[in-house]
Order: sequence, then structure tokens, then C-alpha cells
Amino acid sequence: MTPDDVAGFFARRQDLDPELYLELDFTFECAGDPREAAAHLCSEQSTAQWRRVGIDEDFRPRFAAKVLDIDAAPRREFSIPVAGVAAVNVHAVRVTLAHPHGNFGPRIPNLLSAVCGEGVFFVPKIPLIRLDDIRFPASYRAAFDGPRFGIAGLREKLGAHGRPIFFGVIKPNIGLPPEPFAALGYQAFLGGLDIAKDDEMLADAPWCPLAARAALLGEAARRAAAETGAAKIYLANITDEVDRLIPLHDEAVAQGAGAVLVNAMPVGLSAVRMLRRHARVPLIAHFPFIASFARLPAYGVHSRVLTRLQRLAGFDAVIMPGFGPRMMTPEAEVLDCIRACLEPMGSILPSLPVPGGSDSAATLESVFRKVGSVDFGFVPGRGVFGHPGGPAAGARSLRQAWDAIAAGVPVSERAAAHPDLAAALKAFGPH
Amino acid sequence: MTPDDVAGFFARRQDLDPELYLELDFTFECAGDPREAAAHLCSEQSTAQWRRVGIDEDFRPRFAAKVLDIDAAPRREFSIPVAGVAAVNVHAVRVTLAHPHGNFGPRIPNLLSAVCGEGVFFVPKIPLIRLDDIRFPASYRAAFDGPRFGIAGLREKLGAHGRPIFFGVIKPNIGLPPEPFAALGYQAFLGGLDIAKDDEMLADAPWCPLAARAALLGEAARRAAAETGAAKIYLANITDEVDRLIPLHDEAVAQGAGAVLVNAMPVGLSAVRMLRRHARVPLIAHFPFIASFARLPAYGVHSRVLTRLQRLAGFDAVIMPGFGPRMMTPEAEVLDCIRACLEPMGSILPSLPVPGGSDSAATLESVFRKVGSVDFGFVPGRGVFGHPGGPAAGARSLRQAWDAIAAGVPVSERAAAHPDLAAALKAFGPH
Repeated sequence: MTPDDVAGFFARRQDLDPELYLELDFTFECAGDPREAAAHLCSEQSTAQWRRVGIDEDFRPRFAAKVLDIDAAPRREFSIPVAGVAAVNVHAVRVTLAHPHGNFGPRIPNLLSAVCGEGVFFVPKIPLIRLDDIRFPASYRAAFDGPRFGIAGLREKLGAHGRPIFFGVIKPNIGLPPEPFAALGYQAFLGGLDIAKDDEMLADAPWCPLAARAALLGEAARRAAAETGAAKIYLANITDEVDRLIPLHDEAVAQGAGAVLVNAMPVGLSAVRMLRRHARVPLIAHFPFIASFARLPAYGVHSRVLTRLQRLAGFDAVIMPGFGPRMMTPEAEVLDCIRACLEPMGSILPSLPVPGGSDSAATLESVFRKVGSVDFGFVPGRGVFGHPGGPAAGARSLRQAWDAIAAGVPVSERAAAHPDLAAALKAFGPH
Repeated sequence: MTPDDVAGFFARRQDLDPELYLELDFTFECAGDPREAAAHLCSEQSTAQWRRVGIDEDFRPRFAAKVLDIDAAPRREFSIPVAGVAAVNVHAVRVTLAHPHGNFGPRIPNLLSAVCGEGVFFVPKIPLIRLDDIRFPASYRAAFDGPRFGIAGLREKLGAHGRPIFFGVIKPNIGLPPEPFAALGYQAFLGGLDIAKDDEMLADAPWCPLAARAALLGEAARRAAAETGAAKIYLANITDEVDRLIPLHDEAVAQGAGAVLVNAMPVGLSAVRMLRRHARVPLIAHFPFIASFARLPAYGVHSRVLTRLQRLAGFDAVIMPGFGPRMMTPEAEVLDCIRACLEPMGSILPSLPVPGGSDSAATLESVFRKVGSVDFGFVPGRGVFGHPGGPAAGARSLRQAWDAIAAGVPVSERAAAHPDLAAALKAFGPH
């Protein structure tokens, strides 16, 4: 690129109509001039050849992505060794780009193709890059439905106010037929679980068909609700081929599921958006595949970008890697994702953040303090279903821990009079 | 895990029915005992809690993933700094696992959830892991259609035998209305292109509607075929929301598209499988998003895994990052992906590999030598549409280069008598 070519990919915010652009934050490491690298990043993700041969025209004013801000610092070498780019004159760079969404419109696959595609990950002299964040103007958001129920709707269905929502992943996750599987869920409902869920890997398997499971767990939820006086939801995993999502939703709901789980990336966010227009119960996202591109600070896509897209696509709750070393996710990143669920987004409702991973009564207080509000879901697996007293005792231990926290009493102190809580702390707490 | 628990996740190949298992190759870096880490990897991706509390049962024989081979070497520290795992007693490990596909069945989203999900990327003490390869038994493959046309079918449609298939990405990719866009394609067809394609970022935009584009390019293909006596295909990008794929396919084909392009990951492989059952023309894959998890040797998913899945899902051709520094992909990895398209896969037809990236007449011979056969697609953008003599000259330069290669004449020598080829070598060759 000539210096003039480079200049054509820079703009001042005040000169652009903000409603016409997405804002994208990238961090990258490049060889050579950072301004030229940033211009290539814009060119490759929008109008890579902005005029025909022999014709005096320029598509950049309307169609080019443009650099709004850039901040570059020299560094000795790339932070991860990479093929194909010599580490000469390396810089670590932060840029904010304005990307004209009229190039592709409010369509998730086309959005992903533009902002996570060849034009991002194959830019000359930028071997390492991460899409750190994305912001949508009202004009773009307006095309999306977002959650149908959101946090308030979920609370309403459960009659659960002023506290976290207690999910539990029925375990053993793989291998049980419907009857004993539902029996475990029923026990956990009696103990105080709000939502008993399928594992994200348990779908419509011949050894545990979804219809049979939903019928039994729907019945378990109704019986437990009658016995406890509290609403209960069976969350059925309908993750399957795209053309089975709607039939499985209908079948699971008809049998008794009160919400459905979809593995967002494996199914595809676009299919979720399609399901959202049809679904009559809350949609809950699970996170398989996302870590494959979201774990490393220097490369890939920040997980909050996916959180925002899951909310836009219509998930009422987003299960995400939570706190604690098991999930290998920095605390700041978990909080970024929680904020992406909760912060204002025009008319798009908030999604319930459900940070998960090796939780139990022993981790509830710490998760609550980190989240900083009661607007979250708590989703143990073994912490309920591996409790030495069984699932009812496991669920009771959660509620006992929460009662202590709500009363301002130390959880360990409350355990003295509550053997289920004491057993949970002993089995799952720090040793 | 106790040593007994660990042993329950190991097996000998000869003790398993190979038809019941996928084979997965992983490389990972772990802290602590590599055998225990490998057992956790199996447990987390299959039956994470393999018995109910207080019941003497074991789901592992039928439902557990099992280690078949393991090979571990100590290393000083993790190759990439990671959060949450202390670098104590680090090993670099290669394992092959047998994963029982009956856990989820022949469904792409459930497959991805099991082999690229929480049970792979959130395993205790394994912060860095890559799924390197996957092998399917006949019993699993049998549920998939694979390509309808494959390489032979594409060659038949084009009457193109014994040579590469010449694609070209019409440029400027973003910004042109249908008429001048189609005029460029027509010129390139006349010059000798087999397939003129939309850029992967150009979909059904209001400033260049797919229906209008397909009508004009379909007509251009017909006229060029009549004038040159050679079949021509307009490849229409129908990447869009999942529920628009089939309508857009129908509309594009009715107007004149001879094949359709889908960005595989942004749309989702499951939606592609759905489209495959309906489509009446070849399906061509493009690669946005894949690099976000496939570039780094130490983390993510090897691109050939995605190539195999794209073939299984039904793509007749797979456009992939090709050779040359621009694509930042090691040559061995490009060749792995090409083999994944071509090698025997039971009744699943081969897909045409289309390694792409900054190609032109100047790179054709080198790509052909690396591929080692004529069974590939060649897909320049600027190399045709940025040719100083225009698209017809750009396309002619490709065919002239191929004629030289086929005749065993050095391409540079042939250029002496062919000004379009000479101009291409001057514009795009090494300086």
C-alpha cells in the first residue's frame, strides 16, 4: 500500500454516522509499520480491492472498514512463535475499527465471516490477532429479537426472586436410562434445585431417548413442585442437527421440559436465532467449542464477543466457564462475560449469566461475591449429584449455604446445625 | 482419581470393537502425571461420573472414552503461558483415544460437543491441547451423505479433465452493483476461467442482491460457454441465516448459479448437511473462522479435522488456506488438508481441495508441484481480476501458465510469446 492507500483506511469518529458502523476492538502483533498493518486489516475485512483495473473509482468511503484509534508499542518478538512471518520490527497493537455493517446486514453468519474471517486472521504481517470486543449500534440490534424471557421472565416462571437460580447437572451424565436418571432429578428438585438439567453431552441417545426422559422429568418437576410448593423446571438438551431443533423442542416441551439447552457453537448461532422465533420456553446456552478459540490472550476471539452474540441470538441464560482454577479462565474475563449478559443493550433483554465449573455449596459464597449481585445462575454437577448424601442432600446443601449468605452468617458456621451443608463442605471444600 | 480409576480409562485396541469407536489423536501439555491427565481427558469427554452415589455400577466399559496409545516427554514449561495451572512437572503428550460414538450418534453438533467441548478444553491440569485428527469407522460414516458430485462430478459438469479447475474470485469483492460485477465475471469466463465466484464476504446485500447477480452471471456463463465452447459455472455465495439457505439456493440456481458457496463454520456444518440433502448443484466450502482455532500448533483443533467434517457434511469442494507465506499455514498442514479431501473414505466421495491465497499465473506451477496431482482447484482473486490487462487477460494468463506446465515448458519461457502471461509474472511474480 502507498501512504495514500493507508490514509484511505483511517477516519475520525466524528466524521462517520455511528448508526452505519459496528465498532470492533482488536489486539494484534505485527511485523513492520503498525499503521500499514491496521490499514491492511481494514482492507482485508471489507473492500480488499477498492477499484476496478483502469477505472477511476474508490469504494472505500462507503464500504471500507476504517481505523478509529490505534495504539502501538514495540516488542522484541511475537509472544507465540508462528509460521510464515519474520519477527522483524514487531509491535503489539490495539485498534478500534468502524466496520460498515451494510456490507453484509444483520445476519450472524455474514457478521462472523466479516469480523472473524479471512480478513482478520490472514492479514499480511499480522500472525497474531484477537477480536477483543464488538459494539452494535441500535440500527443493527433492532433486527434481532434477543431473549424472549430474560432474567425477569425466568424468575417469574420459577417464583425465584432476590437470590441466584439453582441449576444442577444430573450425573452420571452419560449412561443412565431415563427412569433412574429422572429419579435423580426428582430427588434434587425435592432438595431445592430450581432447574435440573441434562449434561451438554447428553442429547437424544437411543439408550436414553429425549422424549422418554422429558416425560419422566416433566412429571418429576410437577410432582416436586406440588410437594414443595415451588416451581421446578426440567432443562432438556435438544442439541442436535439443525433441522431437528424445532421438532425436538416441540417434543421435549410437549412431554414436560420447561426450558431447552442448546450447545451454541456446535449447532451454530444462526440456528439458535431460528429456534428463538419458534420456541415457547426459555433457551439456555452451553459453551462447547468456544474455548478452542477464546482461551489465549494473544490469539482468537474473546469469549465476551460470543456472549454478546448468544444474547443477541436469543438465549435467556448463558452457561459459561466460571471462576476457579478448574475453568482456566481469568477472573476478569468471567466478569467481562457476565457484564455482556447484563449491561444495557437497547431493547434486547438481559440474559442470565451462569458461570460454571466444579461448583458446590463450598464455592457459592465466593461466586456470589465475585458476581456482585444475585442475578446469576449456579450450576453444580457433582456438587449436587455427587454429594455423599445423594442429590436431595446435595441440593439442600446449596440452599442452606445461600440462606447463610443471605442472613450474613458464615457458611461454615451455619454448617454446624446442617449436616447436608457440613457434608458438602467436607466433600467439596478446600482440604 | 485412584490408580484403579485411571486404569478404567485405558484399553487395548484388540479388546474393542473398532466399529463402535471414533479414534481421536490429541497432543497436549499437562502438569503432573500424564497417564492421570489422559484418564481425566477420557472421563471429562464421556462419562465424567461413572456411578451413582451408593450404587455399585460402572458405566465405563460401554460409555467411557479410552486411552489406546500414550507417549509423554517432559518439558521445562508450558509452550504458551496460561492462567490457572501451575507449570509443575510439565509433559508434552500424544494420545490416541477410542471414543464410543454411541454416546451421541452420527450428529455433527453432538460430535463437536464431545470432541471439541468442555471435556477436551477444561480437563484438570491440561491447559494446552489440540485435537490433531479424527478417524470414523464405516458404521459412523454410513450415516453421512458426503459430496453429491465430488471431483468427478465437478469435472463432468465442466468438461474439465486432466488439469486443475480454475476458479476466480470476482474483485472488487465488495461495492460493485450486479451489472459491472457480472461484466467482470463474463470477461474472466471468456479468458478461460471455469468458475467465477463471489467473495466469501459478498452475500445477499441490498446494493448487490443475489437474485440479480445470479441472473446476470448465469447469463454471462451461458454466453461465455456458447462463445468458447467450454462449460462455465457461476458460484453464488448463499451464506446467510440457516433458514434462508434453502430459499437462497433455490433462487440462485433458478436464476443461473451452477454451484453455491457456503462459509462452513459461520453457518454451521449441521446446516450444510441439511442443505446437502436439498441441493441440486455442487456445494463449495469457504474457511472463515477456522483459523481462529486452527493456527497454533499447541492449542485448538487441527484444520484437517474440519476438512474431514466438511467432506462428511457434503461439500464437493473445500476452499482452504493454501501455500505461501500470506496464508501463514505450514506446508505440511496444507498437504494434510488436501489428503483429507482425497484419501479413501469408504463410500464418501472425495472433495476437490482448493488451496487458496494470493495466487496467480506466477504461483500455479509451485502449487501444482506441491499438491502433486491435477486434482485441485486454483482460486486467484487479484491474480485474475487485478491483472493489468483486465480479467480476460488474467484468466488467459492462468491457462497459458497451465499449458506450459502441461507441456513441460518453463512458465517464464512460455511468457515470451504470451503477453498476458508475461504481464501476470511481472505484476504478481517475485520481484
